[in-house]
Order: sequence, then structure tokens, then C-alpha cells
Amino acid sequence: MAKYQAYLIDLDGTMYRGNAPIPEAADFIRSLQSESIPFRFVTNNSSRTRYKTMEKLKENGIQAEESHILTPSIIAADYIKSQQEDARVFKIGEHGVEEALHSRGLKITEESPDYVLVGIDRHVTYHKLKEACLHIQKGAQFIATNPDLRVPTEEGFVPGNGAYVELIRHVTKTEPIVVGKPDSLMIELALDELNLPHRDVIMVGDNYDTDIMAGIEAGIDTLHVETGVTSRDDLKKVSIQPTYSVKSLADWKQF
Amino acid sequence: MAKYQAYLIDLDGTMYRGNAPIPEAADFIRSLQSESIPFRFVTNNSSRTRYKTMEKLKENGIQAEESHILTPSIIAADYIKSQQEDARVFKIGEHGVEEALHSRGLKITEESPDYVLVGIDRHVTYHKLKEACLHIQKGAQFIATNPDLRVPTEEGFVPGNGAYVELIRHVTKTEPIVVGKPDSLMIELALDELNLPHRDVIMVGDNYDTDIMAGIEAGIDTLHVETGVTSRDDLKKVSIQPTYSVKSLADWKQF
Repeated sequence: MAKYQAYLIDLDGTMYRGNAPIPEAADFIRSLQSESIPFRFVTNNSSRTRYKTMEKLKENGIQAEESHILTPSIIAADYIKSQQEDARVFKIGEHGVEEALHSRGLKITEESPDYVLVGIDRHVTYHKLKEACLHIQKGAQFIATNPDLRVPTEEGFVPGNGAYVELIRHVTKTEPIVVGKPDSLMIELALDELNLPHRDVIMVGDNYDTDIMAGIEAGIDTLHVETGVTSRDDLKKVSIQPTYSVKSLADWKQF
Repeated sequence: MAKYQAYLIDLDGTMYRGNAPIPEAADFIRSLQSESIPFRFVTNNSSRTRYKTMEKLKENGIQAEESHILTPSIIAADYIKSQQEDARVFKIGEHGVEEALHSRGLKITEESPDYVLVGIDRHVTYHKLKEACLHIQKGAQFIATNPDLRVPTEEGFVPGNGAYVELIRHVTKTEPIVVGKPDSLMIELALDELNLPHRDVIMVGDNYDTDIMAGIEAGIDTLHVETGVTSRDDLKKVSIQPTYSVKSLADWKQF
């Protein structure tokens, strides 16, 4: 069995489950830290800022540096900045999207935007969605933080950002650029930053369709954990298997 | 060329175009009336009540009886009533949906509904959509007034009810019962009411995907008018043609 020089790690379902800690996950991170193995957190959550994510990890017994957390809001803002230094952005999204745009010096506007950036927004209105659709039809670039159609909660599945992205796609007949997993963009950026060969890095996550697929897309090994969305039974239905699958991170000993 | 005993007629794009009258349409209705040929209006608009629709027709020079206007809100309420006399309904929708449910004595509720009825709602919130999704996952029947993904306006396309229906379908993985065109339910009900053989009734509308398809589905002849969504060029791309296609209703002389 291979050993890895670095780990890319999903958050919800892997490091914690909603508001419940996963103790094996905190132990796993401590093992990485004691062996000085570098890691990056790679999340599809666009609503939380990196600072808030760091605090949430801390509540779950996990110490992390803000700069080691990759969110699709930050990556989207970086992408926009790289395309157009002084871009004007119409945004649907919460604090994570807002802070990401501000941190990159991008102007948030309601009028004549160059880009429409869509992240989850639990206060979104018909008016806001309509405006996004009209801006895209007038030529603004359509960017989505992540494609998750639905999000599991204690009460059942609730609408995810992907469901709104689909809505805008249907109205505008325009395909978005999607930043989050299973797109491999965040993984590629993390690999660049770590400056290690693909074979030495592994992606860890609970969700086959996003985490594992993003790893497969990027051409790196993958480790599935059963603490979240995808069960071992679900894995029987997919053709490309993850490199490894464990019940919990307590079963992973290859440090 | 056949003569018809009765006409089923679409509204927006056929009898008026947004806020602009179509004079040929008013002349057409006067011709039907002077020949005592019965007709019914069949619309996918769920937000407007039948009374308000009657008033809008009047503003456009068209006299109509309220009982001759079929809306998907009324048909949805009738359907629910026929399935469960004392049904409790969670609704997304505007005045048309609300009035339809009240007129059929159905209880509108936020808690433990038997049905979730989704019509266009230009004040819909994330919370409301989330609640609809959770009720459907708990077993409430999912009914949609109409499947229109997008609505043309002077500014561009804006979200239609179908875009929200798709959103809920993605989150709940549940297929809705859809009342409006191109489903033939409203046509069938109008035919029942008119009590005429299918061959004697024709469906008139501007939108191939909804009006003409609903007529084809119901097995009646169809008359396409170029005053709305579908152009003559668009018709070249479809395999099943409408029975007739005219530039405007001024070109229809078979009374």
C-alpha cells in the first residue's frame, strides 16, 4: 500500500457531519500533523468564509490554518480576477461569496456586470434570480461556485446551489463555468500549491459524486470514507472505484 | 378545408401580447360570437384569477364569460378535490392559485399537507421552496400548474414556473403531476364540457411546445398563429406539423 506525501480533504461528511463532530477525523488530522504531512481542505461550501470554516474545524477539535482551506468562493474570485482585473460582479450568495470578492478587490454591482457569480443564498428572491438571468442574457459570464443539487440535513434534502444554477441555465440556455467538485479545478490549484507529483497526493472524501470524482478527474488516488453521503452499497453501483474505501478514518493507518 | 364546431384558444401570444392588444384576435372572437360558435380559453397562466383574466380580455377588446376560461390553478384544485375531498394543500403561487383552492373549499396550510401545489410565485423564498421539498419527501403529492421553464418579456426571458418545478424535482427526486399544456388534461376537460367529437374542435395557439403539442396530444386539429413565441421558421425544425399555420387570425376565414 502506498504512502502519500500530502492529503486533500473534504469537510462536511468527512471532518464533521452537520453540527456533529467525527472524532476519528480529528484523530486523523492529529496523525498527519504529528508526522508533518501537509494537507489542504477542499470544500464545496460557498457560504462560509475561510475564517468561519477554521472556527468550525476548531469546534470539532481540528486545528487548521486559514490559508490551507480552499473554498469555491475564493477560487471563483481568483478566476474572475485572472480574467479581468477590474471586473464588476453581480452575486447571488452569502458571506463567503461576498468576502471572497472583496478580498480580491472585485466590485459587487447590481448594474451592467461583467460576471454573474452564483453561490448558495438562503435569502435569494425571485427578483434576484430574474436579474441574474437578464444579466447573463445581456452577455455577463455565468459562474457557479458548485453544482450540488441538494444538501442532506436532519429534516431531509434541501435545495443546494446546483438547483438554482440549473434554474438559471434553463432560463438563459447558457452553460455556467462551475468551480466546485467534481470539477478538478480546486484540486489542480491545491496540487500546484503543494508542488508535489500527482502520484504522491490523495483526495479524501465521503461523497462519490463530488469528492471522489474530483480526485479521479484530477488523476490522483482517492480515499472514500463512509461517514457521510455515499455508502459502501452505493459504491457497488459505480464503475470507477475509489482507490481505497474505509468505514472511518480510524481504519487508515498509512501515515 | 374543415369547419369546426368549437374552438379552444390560448391567451398570451394569441389573444394579446403582454400588455399589447392583437386587433386581429378581437376580430376573430367577434366572428365566432356572431356565428354562435362556442369557444373556451385555455391558458397556462396560474397567477391570474379567472375574473382578472376576463378583465384583461375586456381591456383587449374581447368579451368573455368567466366560466369559459380554464386556468391550470382551477384545474389543479379540481383534480385535488376529486382525489381527496378534505385535502390540505401547501401552495407556492399567487392570487390565481390561492383563489382556485379557496373556491374549491380546500384548506391552505404550512403544516403536514397532503398536496404541494406549485404555481409561479414572484415572491417565492428559499424557505418556501425548502419547505415544499421537505413536505414532498414526507409523502405529500407534488402537483405543478404548468411546466413553462421561461417566460418572454420585453427585457428578456425570466424564470417561469417550470424552472422552480425542476428545482423541486432535482431536490426531491420526485416527478410532479403537471396540469398545464403540453399536457392534454385541460383540453380533455374542455372537450368533455363542450360535448363534441374530437374532429369538430380545434386548438388555437402561438406556442408550438405548449399549445400545439397539447392539441396534438389530445388528438384534435391545431391552428398555429405567428403572433407569439413560435415563428414559421421554428416550425421547420419540428416533425409533427400543426394542422394549419397563419400569420395572424385575420387570415382564418373558416367560420
